[in-house]
Amino acid sequence: MTKNYTKILNSLPSSIPFVGPEAQERILDKTFDSRIGANESVFGPSLEALKVMKAELTSLWMYGDPENYDLKIEIAKKHNVKPENIIIGEGIDGLLGYLVRMFVEPKDKVVTTDGSYPTFNYHVNGYGGLLKKIPFKNDFEDIDGLLKISKIEFPKIVYVSNPNNPMGTLNKKVEMKKFITEVPKETLICLDEAYADFVSTEELIDIDIKQENIIRMRTFSKAYGLAGARVGYGIGHRKLINNFDKIRNHFGMNRVSQFAAIASLKDNKHLEDVISKVKKSLKKLEQIAISNNCKFIKSYTNFLSIDCGYDGIFAKNVLDFLISNGIFVRMPFTSPENRCIRVSAGTDKDLKLFKEKFPLALSNAKKKLNLK
Amino acid sequence: MTKNYTKILNSLPSSIPFVGPEAQERILDKTFDSRIGANESVFGPSLEALKVMKAELTSLWMYGDPENYDLKIEIAKKHNVKPENIIIGEGIDGLLGYLVRMFVEPKDKVVTTDGSYPTFNYHVNGYGGLLKKIPFKNDFEDIDGLLKISKIEFPKIVYVSNPNNPMGTLNKKVEMKKFITEVPKETLICLDEAYADFVSTEELIDIDIKQENIIRMRTFSKAYGLAGARVGYGIGHRKLINNFDKIRNHFGMNRVSQFAAIASLKDNKHLEDVISKVKKSLKKLEQIAISNNCKFIKSYTNFLSIDCGYDGIFAKNVLDFLISNGIFVRMPFTSPENRCIRVSAGTDKDLKLFKEKFPLALSNAKKKLNLK
Repeated sequence: MTKNYTKILNSLPSSIPFVGPEAQERILDKTFDSRIGANESVFGPSLEALKVMKAELTSLWMYGDPENYDLKIEIAKKHNVKPENIIIGEGIDGLLGYLVRMFVEPKDKVVTTDGSYPTFNYHVNGYGGLLKKIPFKNDFEDIDGLLKISKIEFPKIVYVSNPNNPMGTLNKKVEMKKFITEVPKETLICLDEAYADFVSTEELIDIDIKQENIIRMRTFSKAYGLAGARVGYGIGHRKLINNFDKIRNHFGMNRVSQFAAIASLKDNKHLEDVISKVKKSLKKLEQIAISNNCKFIKSYTNFLSIDCGYDGIFAKNVLDFLISNGIFVRMPFTSPENRCIRVSAGTDKDLKLFKEKFPLALSNAKKKLNLK
Repeated sequence: MTKNYTKILNSLPSSIPFVGPEAQERILDKTFDSRIGANESVFGPSLEALKVMKAELTSLWMYGDPENYDLKIEIAKKHNVKPENIIIGEGIDGLLGYLVRMFVEPKDKVVTTDGSYPTFNYHVNGYGGLLKKIPFKNDFEDIDGLLKISKIEFPKIVYVSNPNNPMGTLNKKVEMKKFITEVPKETLICLDEAYADFVSTEELIDIDIKQENIIRMRTFSKAYGLAGARVGYGIGHRKLINNFDKIRNHFGMNRVSQFAAIASLKDNKHLEDVISKVKKSLKKLEQIAISNNCKFIKSYTNFLSIDCGYDGIFAKNVLDFLISNGIFVRMPFTSPENRCIRVSAGTDKDLKLFKEKFPLALSNAKKKLNLK
């Protein structure tokens, strides 16, 4: 049998890079007291969205509209573009898969930042592409470096996230402007803006749907508090957007999620409220970091990367302690970013727990590694 | 730009084969009075599922478990297999996409029935495969023919649906048994059993998860009344199932849908109730067909194909009349199957409307085509 899989499939690793908190809970045989590791929004969805979802559950016997017509209109309004400039899919993850499939043939080059979003890399590997990775630079995506390598390699896609994950930093508008102007026209810029709702519009480059070689990814999973609903979208040139229709799972969207996203877009008050709560929560996380003699990376997202002060092994020990003590958090994969742990904005209860356990995690790691 | 898409993408048609009822409603500028065209379940989801979904909406800020762990256990129980034999995805549509991607490289041969499920063909084309289609035989999938061509062509995949769509017929167990035994081991048998819940287990071949070259697709979209929730699954050998993890969208599942599916599996009474209602509804549709001097195709699904008595042009006229008169139905694409229209089981209200409009649709078509 095995010989009948595609060559690419046979070459892919069997290990899965996507361990969810539920899997960790099963191993620990208890549920987490605090779930602040996946940058979900503990502040939940809009009450308007909840109301609509409750009302629409009985209509779930029907497939959702495969064109996402009504939702596209609302998203287009938010960004002052046309519905034809919007593609909607099963989370940004799903759209990244489609995007890579549209552009990447085996051995095609793709540029990204080492340690940046692993699901993008997963899809590039999944389609046989060759990843060229450059490192973070002082905890920022190295926009100049990405530009330079793109001008040399002419990759099919260059992936940039802004603000980025897992460091939470934001690249300057002027840098980004230069980048998207100068990347070779043959290269598709995938600008992942999953966390853009936490940044003021003035700090982001304008959306220009006339530029053919850029797509900007957004999501309802972060600020809108609908991670489990699986609604992501891309904004781009009409021609690029149209091409998704050639390959996507047309009936892939949950019907109730479509309604939830529409209702969420109309509830600006909830969005503002969440953003304000996130900022307050991050402030408190910063204070917890400082009071434990840790630095933190200034964040433009709904999470904070806390520099534990030593290397990746130390941070991993801190992380493991937190996890085995009921607090789900994550950490970067690459050095030196992995000196940090990544903590999502939490409720007061989450913060209280973290405040209590974090010093114990630090001292435990020091003891284990014989640090003073 | 265009030259940077993959060769396959550039070769794909821009036209979309997936017109949903919502798009038709937008054209007609009114909503359908009766939605009996997509084989959804008008009888809705289980009340237990509705209860769980309502309770879990507030947890939608969390991603669903990427492993679908709990749901796999329940599905495995239903089929008396292990969770490792179950793959869950965004509807059968989504799983078909993954499956084709796992096996089909450009120019690889794939065998199916002409006029059978178009979404499977869409995915095969989308990955550059070469479709070899053989016709229906007396409104049945031609299992002998599919076997014969598989033995000659050694395709990567042979697609069979049983019961099939759009005719609703069921191939005999003994035929199916011979088929799955004799198809070359190099060929993956994709057995689409979306409608299997409407058939007694005795009429279906046993599930054998030791056979490596077969996957059986099932869904919560039909009998379970959860089309909008997007939950499909495949049953197969552990090795085959494992390979989905190399490429699938791990976080593609809606969290509330996962809970809904689990609750549905535990509510056998609802399932039995739906099956009984569907049978009664189809009986009434049969009577409507007969009283209009039409034949019908004996159905093993939740829809009935009604032979309008003439050719595809005639049936298309009948269909168009029904649609413009508020009744959403569909029809087969291929001749001579397209002498039929395909009507899903409906509520009493749906049936009343159909009973009223169907004779008008027939007489209108006769008048238009100058038939007596």
